[in-house]
Amino acid sequence: MKLATYKDGSRDGQLVVVSRDLSTATFATGIATRLQQALDDWNFIAPQLQDVSVALNHHKARHAFPFDPRQCMAPLPRAFQWADGSAYLNHVELVRKARGAEMPESFHGDPLMYQGGSDDFLGPCDPVPFGDAAWGIDFEAEVCVVTGDVAMRASPEQALEGVRLVLLANDWSLRHLIPPELAKGFGFLQSKPSTAFSPVAVTPDELGDAWQGGRLHLPLTCTWNGRKVGHVDAGPEMSFHFGQLIAHLAKTRNVRAGTLVGSGTVSNADRTRGYACIAEKRALEMIEDGEAKTGFMQFGDVIRIEMKRDDHSVFGAIEQQVVECD
Amino acid sequence: MKLATYKDGSRDGQLVVVSRDLSTATFATGIATRLQQALDDWNFIAPQLQDVSVALNHHKARHAFPFDPRQCMAPLPRAFQWADGSAYLNHVELVRKARGAEMPESFHGDPLMYQGGSDDFLGPCDPVPFGDAAWGIDFEAEVCVVTGDVAMRASPEQALEGVRLVLLANDWSLRHLIPPELAKGFGFLQSKPSTAFSPVAVTPDELGDAWQGGRLHLPLTCTWNGRKVGHVDAGPEMSFHFGQLIAHLAKTRNVRAGTLVGSGTVSNADRTRGYACIAEKRALEMIEDGEAKTGFMQFGDVIRIEMKRDDHSVFGAIEQQVVECD
Repeated sequence: MKLATYKDGSRDGQLVVVSRDLSTATFATGIATRLQQALDDWNFIAPQLQDVSVALNHHKARHAFPFDPRQCMAPLPRAFQWADGSAYLNHVELVRKARGAEMPESFHGDPLMYQGGSDDFLGPCDPVPFGDAAWGIDFEAEVCVVTGDVAMRASPEQALEGVRLVLLANDWSLRHLIPPELAKGFGFLQSKPSTAFSPVAVTPDELGDAWQGGRLHLPLTCTWNGRKVGHVDAGPEMSFHFGQLIAHLAKTRNVRAGTLVGSGTVSNADRTRGYACIAEKRALEMIEDGEAKTGFMQFGDVIRIEMKRDDHSVFGAIEQQVVECD
Repeated sequence: MKLATYKDGSRDGQLVVVSRDLSTATFATGIATRLQQALDDWNFIAPQLQDVSVALNHHKARHAFPFDPRQCMAPLPRAFQWADGSAYLNHVELVRKARGAEMPESFHGDPLMYQGGSDDFLGPCDPVPFGDAAWGIDFEAEVCVVTGDVAMRASPEQALEGVRLVLLANDWSLRHLIPPELAKGFGFLQSKPSTAFSPVAVTPDELGDAWQGGRLHLPLTCTWNGRKVGHVDAGPEMSFHFGQLIAHLAKTRNVRAGTLVGSGTVSNADRTRGYACIAEKRALEMIEDGEAKTGFMQFGDVIRIEMKRDDHSVFGAIEQQVVECD
C-alpha cells in the first residue's frame, strides 16, 4: 500500500491511503489519524489500512478524492529518528578523491552514517528557505526506509525484516558549512538543515521484484531547473543494504518504530548516468579539470527528484524551490 | 511546576504533575496524557497543569499519590530532537590536552554540539544494557532544557525565551568506540547509546534565582558505586548559556517543540570539585601522571546523579546500574 500525510494545520497532519497509480486518496478515518500511530501499532493497524488500499485500487473506496502531492507534508512530518547512511561508496570515493584524500579500506566493511535532525521535516513541494545563498546549497537524492522496532544487536537480516515503508528523501546540505563543522569533530548540525521526503511512502510489497536484497533496483531521476542532471540506478551499487545500515545503527541501542534510515546520495560509477547531488559533479570536475565549474543552487532554483517504474511514478515527486528566508 | 512521565506500558507513558518536594504526584487527567502533547500546545495546556501543581503543593489535589521515581520513564520517553552541546570548555580543554591537542581558539565563540538519537530514552532508574564492558562505559552528568518552537535564525535572547523545562541528563558514552567513530568524520552514532534523564522536568520559575542568564547555578553531584566523585557547579563555568546553544542549533533550521538541548558534561576548573564523567578524571591523570588509572564502568556498577537546593532534590535522582545485554 501507499501512504501519505495531508496538511491539516496540525504538527503531524492527517494520514491518507493513496492509490497505486497516485491518482486518488482517502483519509484513514477510524483507523489512524497519524502515520506514527500506525507505525507504533503496525501489526494491528497495517492490515486495516491495507483493506482500504485494496478498495481504493479497485475504485471502491468511499470518500476517495483526487490525490494532490502539493497538499502533502513529509509522510512523517516529524520523526523520533533520522539516521542517514552513505552507502554508495562511489560517491564517498569521488568526494574524497577531489580533496586529495584516500578512502580508508575500512569503509568497505563499516558503513558511514550520521545522526540527523528529525523535528521539522519538509513536505515534498515545500519551499526551502535559507539565510544565505553563499552557504553552498545542494540537494542529495536518496532512497530511505521507515523501520518498526528493531532490537539492539539485531543482525542485518533481522534488521531488514524491520523495514515497514520505503520512500525518497532530499537531504538538503550546505556544502560550505560542512568543512568547518566536520573539522570540529562532532559531525553535521548546521550544515544539514531540514530534510524533505517524497509525497508517498510505500510498503516493500508494492515494489515487487524491484525490492531485492534490501536494495531498491530502480532509477532515480534528478531534474535541476528543468534539466535532467541525473538518472542513477539505486540498486546494484548500494554497497550496504538497508538491513546492514539499520543493524549498524542498532549496535549499541534499540531502534524504535518510526525511525528513518537513508541510503545517502545515490551514485553510479558510470558517469553518463549523471549525478544526484551537485557536490559529486563538482568532485568529478575537480578530478578531471582541476576546478569545480558547476555552482551550487541559487534562490529561485527548483529541484525535482522522482523514481519511476514502467513510466509510473512510484513515490510521487519531490519538487522544491530554494527561497530566501524572510 | 514539576512534571514527570509514569510508566504505563505505552511508548509515551502518562504525564504526571509532581509536588515541589517530590513527595506526591497526580495524573494530569483531562488536561494532557503525554508531555509532548503539553509542549505542542504549551500556552493552552501549561496554565491548566500549573493549576494542578498549585493544588498539589497545597495538599489539595484530588487523587494525589506518593511519587515514586522508579515508576518514571524519561520525562520525554522519546523526543523529536536531542542536541547535546559541550558548553563547559574546561572539560573540552582537558580532554584535548590529555591527547596532546590544543583547543582551537574558535571554540570560545562557536559552540560544540552533536545531534543525538532520541527515539529510545532511558528512565532515571532503568538499568543500562551494554553488549561489551570493554567499550569503555562512561556516564556524563549534564543539565538540559526542553524547548518550545524556536524559529530559524533566532537570537540567543529569543532562543532563551523558548526554554520550557529544565532537567538532568546522563549522556551515556562508549569511550573506546568514540575515537574510531569520530575518525570517520560523521560524528557520534554507536558511541552514544540511549541517554537517560532525571525523573522530573521543571519549569524555570521553579528554580528561582538559581536560573540566571540561561544557566543553572546549582551543584551537580555524581556518586559512583556509593562514592561521591563529583560535586560540580553547573553555573558560572558554562561558557555558552542555553540561549546560545539553542540559537546555534537554529541557525539553519527551525527548532520545534519538545527539542532537548544538553549542556555537555558539567566541569569546573577547581579540581577539588571532582568530575561528572570518568573521561575527564582520566584526562587529568594522563596530564599529571602520564597514564589514566581510573577504569571505566563495569557491569554491576551504579551511578547516581542529583542536584540539590537547600538540601532538597530539585529533579529527583538519576540512579542507574550498568548491566550486560541478555
